[in-house]
Amino acid sequence: MDVEPAPSRTGQQRVRISRVQGTTAGSAFDEVAREDALQLMVDSLPLAIMLRTPGSDLELALGLLHAEGVVAKVAEIASVRIAPSGQRDLHFPQLELELDPEAENLVDVKLRAPLPDGGLGWQRALPSSSACGICGAATLEALQRFQPPVEGDFVWPIERIFHLPEMLAESQRVFSTTGGLHAAGLLSWEGSPMMVAEDVGRHNAVDKLVGRALAEGRLPLTNSAMVVSGRAGFEIVQKAAAAQVAVVASISAPSSLAVQTAELLGVTLIGFLRGERCNVYSRPDRVGLPGGPGAG
Amino acid sequence: MDVEPAPSRTGQQRVRISRVQGTTAGSAFDEVAREDALQLMVDSLPLAIMLRTPGSDLELALGLLHAEGVVAKVAEIASVRIAPSGQRDLHFPQLELELDPEAENLVDVKLRAPLPDGGLGWQRALPSSSACGICGAATLEALQRFQPPVEGDFVWPIERIFHLPEMLAESQRVFSTTGGLHAAGLLSWEGSPMMVAEDVGRHNAVDKLVGRALAEGRLPLTNSAMVVSGRAGFEIVQKAAAAQVAVVASISAPSSLAVQTAELLGVTLIGFLRGERCNVYSRPDRVGLPGGPGAG
Repeated sequence: MDVEPAPSRTGQQRVRISRVQGTTAGSAFDEVAREDALQLMVDSLPLAIMLRTPGSDLELALGLLHAEGVVAKVAEIASVRIAPSGQRDLHFPQLELELDPEAENLVDVKLRAPLPDGGLGWQRALPSSSACGICGAATLEALQRFQPPVEGDFVWPIERIFHLPEMLAESQRVFSTTGGLHAAGLLSWEGSPMMVAEDVGRHNAVDKLVGRALAEGRLPLTNSAMVVSGRAGFEIVQKAAAAQVAVVASISAPSSLAVQTAELLGVTLIGFLRGERCNVYSRPDRVGLPGGPGAG
Repeated sequence: MDVEPAPSRTGQQRVRISRVQGTTAGSAFDEVAREDALQLMVDSLPLAIMLRTPGSDLELALGLLHAEGVVAKVAEIASVRIAPSGQRDLHFPQLELELDPEAENLVDVKLRAPLPDGGLGWQRALPSSSACGICGAATLEALQRFQPPVEGDFVWPIERIFHLPEMLAESQRVFSTTGGLHAAGLLSWEGSPMMVAEDVGRHNAVDKLVGRALAEGRLPLTNSAMVVSGRAGFEIVQKAAAAQVAVVASISAPSSLAVQTAELLGVTLIGFLRGERCNVYSRPDRVGLPGGPGAG
């Protein structure tokens, strides 16, 4: 299991995990989808920061600018400054590319005609529909500076972790009818009733949980576990950690940036939690197995 | 099938659809998850527009402000102005609520101490991680003004629609390994090879497709179909319609705002496309069944 497999493909990254099956755990490798922040600039003015999977940054930038009504056709673009690492395919005969190895995680689209107001009106209008928490300081180092690590050190028995998805499903109101809502549930280590929130947006469901706790004066949520119905991306882990949630468990896959953030902020990140199996991506010492605390 | 069922619950909305099974179609009702824009204000200054499922707007607003580091605890909040319709649960003894029926789809959080810089720095820093297309003009009426309807009128044989998810799966590079990437595929009516993009974010995958077509000078994508691996929310439909994609098909559920947007912009929106079944939420005349064009 510990043999290094073939190199990761562009959109993914290999991480070392604890793989739990029933009451045993072993060290293994897992491939997670890459997630990283991208700075979008127009005429060298920063317009937006997005989380994305690297590899087609040019297409992503142009597609977003098209959806926002900034660019209608390729002839309106003078050139695009981009790092070769951000772009898998560089064959765009109708575009002038400035390849700049310094411009990692950055795309600068230069237009033939300047944006009205120097782009300021457009910059402010860009909504934060998924309420990402990176907040302009788009680096993990910055996150480390302004956000304290999670402190809870209670050990969660593995049976209680395996039970989280069932508790979430039982508490959900809407999902079974529409199939269209994400859910997030919060459980204290002491085992109070699970608090559940639902939303079309994954991050919104997490915000609703933390917001409710805040409104009720129950922050920080030290020694709580959060379970989410969808994938665990950066924002999920960052928002949970900001509320001092110690264990974040997802039914599905985490992203690379979620794993890095969990490690940095001391969150126990669990993925693929289904039946009596799960992967533990960070801080396995909070996962209690019969042989003693810790899964790894 | 056409009998009006019981009233929808808070987080969902009933819509009339064409339900296709094999080569037959019938009119039916479906429940979709509600999605609507929410304006978040702090001290009456607009800070962000989010897409969310209504019902816990207060919790969502406070949770987002907590994740962004704006509010740490309930004592920092002087009052919250909110519409009664936006909030299922109004029992927050530690919060002063100003219930304002005029403030629909709006939460205004008033702080005891003002934000630094009147909040402007924070407002600009809010990233658009999912690249939502509502662009400040958070109403369908505004969308109608600045975005022309989709014109393609080719009829898509139902077998070709049923085949879309398989084509997407065959073209995907990464999903099978990580389980963590969303995919979007684009197919022209004439049947050129499917163009595929992947990303941790659903909307990013759509932006990458449209951005590639733009870079190659292939816009508008009239008489194309797009298939997405995840749910179809507002942004998916808006971005596809901006590129004149006529048919948007999702393996999973659409949201209420996606259905409304598809109707408004003339997009054929298909959901729950699995095996030889699907739901058609709008413009069924582009879905070709053996009895003649149109599914409804």
